[in-house]
Amino acid sequence: MARVFIAGGAHSKYIGKFHSDFIWKKHPDFGKKENPDLEWYLRESAVDALASVAATAAAVDKAFVGNFAGELFGKQGHLGAMLAAADPDLAGKPIWRVEGACASGGLAIAAAVDAIRAGSDVVLVVGAEVQNTENAKVGADYLARAAHYKRQRDIDPFTFPALFGIRAKAMVEQTEATMDDFARASAKAYSNANKNPLAHMTSYQMSFEMAALASDKNPVFLSNEAIKPYLRVSDCSQVSDGASAVVLCSEKGLERIGRELTQCSEIIASQVATASLTADPDPLCLENTITAAQRAYKEAGLSAYDVQVAEVHDCFTPNEVLMYEALGFAPAGQGALMLREGQTSLDGPLPVNTGGGLVGFGHPVGATGVKQVLEIYRQMKGQCGEYQLAKTPGIGLCANMGGDDRTTAIHLVRDLT
Amino acid sequence: MARVFIAGGAHSKYIGKFHSDFIWKKHPDFGKKENPDLEWYLRESAVDALASVAATAAAVDKAFVGNFAGELFGKQGHLGAMLAAADPDLAGKPIWRVEGACASGGLAIAAAVDAIRAGSDVVLVVGAEVQNTENAKVGADYLARAAHYKRQRDIDPFTFPALFGIRAKAMVEQTEATMDDFARASAKAYSNANKNPLAHMTSYQMSFEMAALASDKNPVFLSNEAIKPYLRVSDCSQVSDGASAVVLCSEKGLERIGRELTQCSEIIASQVATASLTADPDPLCLENTITAAQRAYKEAGLSAYDVQVAEVHDCFTPNEVLMYEALGFAPAGQGALMLREGQTSLDGPLPVNTGGGLVGFGHPVGATGVKQVLEIYRQMKGQCGEYQLAKTPGIGLCANMGGDDRTTAIHLVRDLT
Repeated sequence: MARVFIAGGAHSKYIGKFHSDFIWKKHPDFGKKENPDLEWYLRESAVDALASVAATAAAVDKAFVGNFAGELFGKQGHLGAMLAAADPDLAGKPIWRVEGACASGGLAIAAAVDAIRAGSDVVLVVGAEVQNTENAKVGADYLARAAHYKRQRDIDPFTFPALFGIRAKAMVEQTEATMDDFARASAKAYSNANKNPLAHMTSYQMSFEMAALASDKNPVFLSNEAIKPYLRVSDCSQVSDGASAVVLCSEKGLERIGRELTQCSEIIASQVATASLTADPDPLCLENTITAAQRAYKEAGLSAYDVQVAEVHDCFTPNEVLMYEALGFAPAGQGALMLREGQTSLDGPLPVNTGGGLVGFGHPVGATGVKQVLEIYRQMKGQCGEYQLAKTPGIGLCANMGGDDRTTAIHLVRDLT
Repeated sequence: MARVFIAGGAHSKYIGKFHSDFIWKKHPDFGKKENPDLEWYLRESAVDALASVAATAAAVDKAFVGNFAGELFGKQGHLGAMLAAADPDLAGKPIWRVEGACASGGLAIAAAVDAIRAGSDVVLVVGAEVQNTENAKVGADYLARAAHYKRQRDIDPFTFPALFGIRAKAMVEQTEATMDDFARASAKAYSNANKNPLAHMTSYQMSFEMAALASDKNPVFLSNEAIKPYLRVSDCSQVSDGASAVVLCSEKGLERIGRELTQCSEIIASQVATASLTADPDPLCLENTITAAQRAYKEAGLSAYDVQVAEVHDCFTPNEVLMYEALGFAPAGQGALMLREGQTSLDGPLPVNTGGGLVGFGHPVGATGVKQVLEIYRQMKGQCGEYQLAKTPGIGLCANMGGDDRTTAIHLVRDLT
């Protein structure tokens, strides 16, 4: 079985509301300039990723695009052919677009791993999403297509926030977790993002006190009164536009592009699990994520104790807590204690979402799973600037989740420095 | 490199306007029953495909869904998790949805081939699409997202028919092809479909004379006057709902499900090429398809002369002619002669689209590429009933195309009887 290496990659800026580059009605460029579209993000991140490893597009054997909803937000599907427009030498290459809701990026990485194991040597993976073409209500309707639309659309105008509000309520009522713990997750995310020039929330600040208090500035917004108190705006990931791209290689591929092993990290486990969209999950447990994680640890011959840095899918702050438990970082019901004790902060023993995660860095849906893998790589290579960890991590984990724990892609990464 | 076998598979009925099962305003069940939705098609075809090889869902290692526009026509994305709902034993499996416009099915097959070459043993591939939830104008707008929407949407209310009308006009003006030749392709498609109980056009008849004459019953419908005369309704593939599924296996996979090699066909080449969505193609030539086909012939060590049966992407009849040329069945500019001479009819030396192709069998977009592979298998195994070829073919080719020759998946198949 071919080994799979992360040779390098690039993020675009992640932008949206509250980011100074994002053009909306109060922006000085409003009416003069448009925000970049999906075509721009695909091209920009692909070109930058190839440049980051000093490779030409001609060196690429295959490519994958992770995207959830281009045909909705941008009226554009057929995204493989859109990526082929990024460079004249990409034209003619075999390119797939893969979709698994918010796990689209992780699925793209996993497909690329299979492609290398099947004989490809240089594979480009681009995750991208543009969501700010529509207002929040329309966007929520689009995103609800990641749930079982016919059955779940009407639980709330904001379907996904409601699904995770249900989890938050159950957690507060039945486990160690409190609303303050969710606020701690939020404050950590913003604090990390404030150190990250690429993050959507690079300059917007969110203290623990502000996150903990539902207020006009940090409203609860669900219509369903029973769930409403359990989810504040500060608990939500961002509606971001952005892209992340990585170049994955076999050993032969590294030779082709002239990249040394020590410049790389290695993907030592790649696992996907998919649960039924018609089943309702246990609100206290990410069962499908547990399945994927257990397979990944087995594939790598590692356990949760070996993980030194992680990127987990904090689509909503309660999910960060559930992720700690599903990934084996904390016992069931006790994930929140890790936040309370600062264990997953930048200076803690197991830093999680060092660049800000989905809440702080942002969540351009299809980009997120690719971003996670690149973030682990960047921490391993000392490329994270102000949020660089003091101790370079040797083993990292990425957990990218689609829908309400319906698709999970787990990648374990080992540094080769 | 692991060998990849087609163990079996199943089609749903392909239905839509002019099919007796399709419920619309003149149907006796109108208002009482609904047409099946995407969830139904995914489940039905997956369950039937597994039954066709007497395998349980538990035996499946991985699965792929080919679908273009579920989030538009059915407000449903996250289709891997929807497939996981098809059988309790599919839950937890790794499942990807792949998209490449009308080549989504072929891309799903190609991804499954990579998965087997990467170590999976039993892979389920389901292609499905439901398009009849919307009227033709809305549908045309959705399908235009397979082109470069911003640049090409406004060439005509029916974007894709117009793109292929441009090709038809150039062909008629500059090559051997005539409008009568396109009518011959249409009449062949309907004639074959009339022998196929699963076909959308199983009972609707289209003679050469009717196809050749633009009339109230067979109108030209483009708004662009320059192109309008070059495309009649009879030249178009169908707006179908339907699904096709196949089970692909490694040799170990065949042992697991208890299937003999002689019950299988083998995929001996799997190639994808993707052209830039921002480039305008030569109207007389499917350059990207040529790229994919040449790679496939090279991979299999075969040439066009070895092909004994083919499934080609006749999204519009002129494209069937261009496919003959791109695949090397006929010299450039002379593909139409094959139709005139009956060479690709059921009793000709190289039968093409024996079950009716996209024009006659129908074109549920994401299903088509999967259907093609299964059709070749069924011809090899004598499963085609009234349209079974007299001489069992030993080598078959599938050419599945997305957009205006922007993504092409080519598969070469060898019988193992």
